[in-house]
Amino acid sequence: MTVLVFLDPAFADGRIVDAGKPALMATDQGATRGDGIFESMLAVDGKPRKIHRHLDRLASSAQSLELTIPEPEVWQRAIATALAAFADDGGGGAAGGGGGGAAGGAEAVVKLVVTRGVEGSSAPTAWVQVSLPPEAGRLQRENGIDVLLLDRGYDSTVAERAPWLLLGAKTLSYAVNMAALRHAHSNGADDVIFTSSDGRVLEGPTSSVLLAHAEGEGGTRVRRLITPALDSGILPGTSQSALFGAAKAAGWELGYGPLVPEDLFDADAVWLISSIRLLAPVNHIDGREIGTSDVRAALTAELNELIAAT
Amino acid sequence: MTVLVFLDPAFADGRIVDAGKPALMATDQGATRGDGIFESMLAVDGKPRKIHRHLDRLASSAQSLELTIPEPEVWQRAIATALAAFADDGGGGAAGGGGGGAAGGAEAVVKLVVTRGVEGSSAPTAWVQVSLPPEAGRLQRENGIDVLLLDRGYDSTVAERAPWLLLGAKTLSYAVNMAALRHAHSNGADDVIFTSSDGRVLEGPTSSVLLAHAEGEGGTRVRRLITPALDSGILPGTSQSALFGAAKAAGWELGYGPLVPEDLFDADAVWLISSIRLLAPVNHIDGREIGTSDVRAALTAELNELIAAT
Repeated sequence: MTVLVFLDPAFADGRIVDAGKPALMATDQGATRGDGIFESMLAVDGKPRKIHRHLDRLASSAQSLELTIPEPEVWQRAIATALAAFADDGGGGAAGGGGGGAAGGAEAVVKLVVTRGVEGSSAPTAWVQVSLPPEAGRLQRENGIDVLLLDRGYDSTVAERAPWLLLGAKTLSYAVNMAALRHAHSNGADDVIFTSSDGRVLEGPTSSVLLAHAEGEGGTRVRRLITPALDSGILPGTSQSALFGAAKAAGWELGYGPLVPEDLFDADAVWLISSIRLLAPVNHIDGREIGTSDVRAALTAELNELIAAT
Repeated sequence: MTVLVFLDPAFADGRIVDAGKPALMATDQGATRGDGIFESMLAVDGKPRKIHRHLDRLASSAQSLELTIPEPEVWQRAIATALAAFADDGGGGAAGGGGGGAAGGAEAVVKLVVTRGVEGSSAPTAWVQVSLPPEAGRLQRENGIDVLLLDRGYDSTVAERAPWLLLGAKTLSYAVNMAALRHAHSNGADDVIFTSSDGRVLEGPTSSVLLAHAEGEGGTRVRRLITPALDSGILPGTSQSALFGAAKAAGWELGYGPLVPEDLFDADAVWLISSIRLLAPVNHIDGREIGTSDVRAALTAELNELIAAT
């Protein structure tokens, strides 16, 4: 079940269209050139999580691509319309199939898309899509994932000197991200951590990288959560950022890379974190186990509690 | 005026759809992830140029992306359907506006697109689009262009070691190519030549790079045509390849990079060559004039004759 709501100046709350029928022009530059941006967020019991972080990042991506996009309030009304229609259709209930994830209640995926519009027109095309989360994501966050390190081809300093590479923007041009995932799957892995050509840890194709160290016991226990620094040309992670806020409040120390692969192998736990799958513990990287299953499970449980409260 | 023909197993010659109405599902992975491939070729007087080179490259791109696409015969029938409908609509005639280019008769752009299809489906979406060529291209091939050198971020050896970067495939994920062109336009230039992070000349965002040297006069005259080698991770150019065949037959010496920017500045002429705009002489690169306008014009005229005969 999928609900589609197009943003349309003639419809203040968005225009619902039949998701079973064609809704895009074949000349739309989103389809012909991947020229556009998107966000994916989780809604739990009909309420989108971290909506302001996602709308802020959408605006930042739009700026990188010189796209003029609708105002946050317009998005919020269209998202509300779509989630209401989704609930009316029976989505998000316990019977809907997406319920009971790490975040608590019934889950739905809310995707925002903006393209540069139809060739020759100056108006962007913008829509909200609501659908059930993929079952595979729930299993991966419960069972963990095996990951390959793959070269992203860029060095970690290129983002600043070459803004036309759009490295901090979440564009529709995801063919390389999808190809990297296919490469991992055909080599028996579930996901990918990209490295830069100068050997830095970057991000997953659809996620941010986290690692943790835990030392000591009881009152003297120290837990440290680390993620690659943004200036290496990665996407700012909305989930990583929200979790860092919660972890800091809960007494964790925080750190920001540069990180190299050896830092991942030395960690007590590594995760890929993203808005839909949430926290996916990494069992193996390039076939080497990360930490021990007991420590991974304990730290994952602790962070999942923090995520549920964000 | 645009004609759209979808490839559809139920229609042997393709299914004509109304180009003024939505024809794509909003969940098509071409639109949501730039996950697909394309080709653009010129048709002159209703006849596509270099169709086999384009269908061969489409098949090669499909292999890189692990996409199963329709057979060449199916494409050829759909292209014939689309060109016939375009002619019936008055396209391609002298009054159509696209006539009289370097290639001779009335021109049309034939675009082939294949996406990974709708999310969750295993069938690709494939269509043919026929439209008039942009007027800007004709002016640029007549008047020449100013170009900026921009860093593509990849080093020239990455293509071979990282096939998931899809460097030899013509994918729908063109957001970076479009951003580089916007960057050039906002800096007073018309187009871009990408360089690798290790300083090699690569290609334009939508074209191949050529340079020429001419020495001597009359019977002892030597003309040399050079293009970057394919192993630097560039797209194999169908127009470059066709022109090289014709130039060799006409007595030109041929050469293949590695090339560095200084080779461009030292050349007697530089061009960006592509299937729709054809041969665009480069007047300036980063503000420095290439050769002299007389020599550029003479060599351009010579190569345009060869192109018209291919």
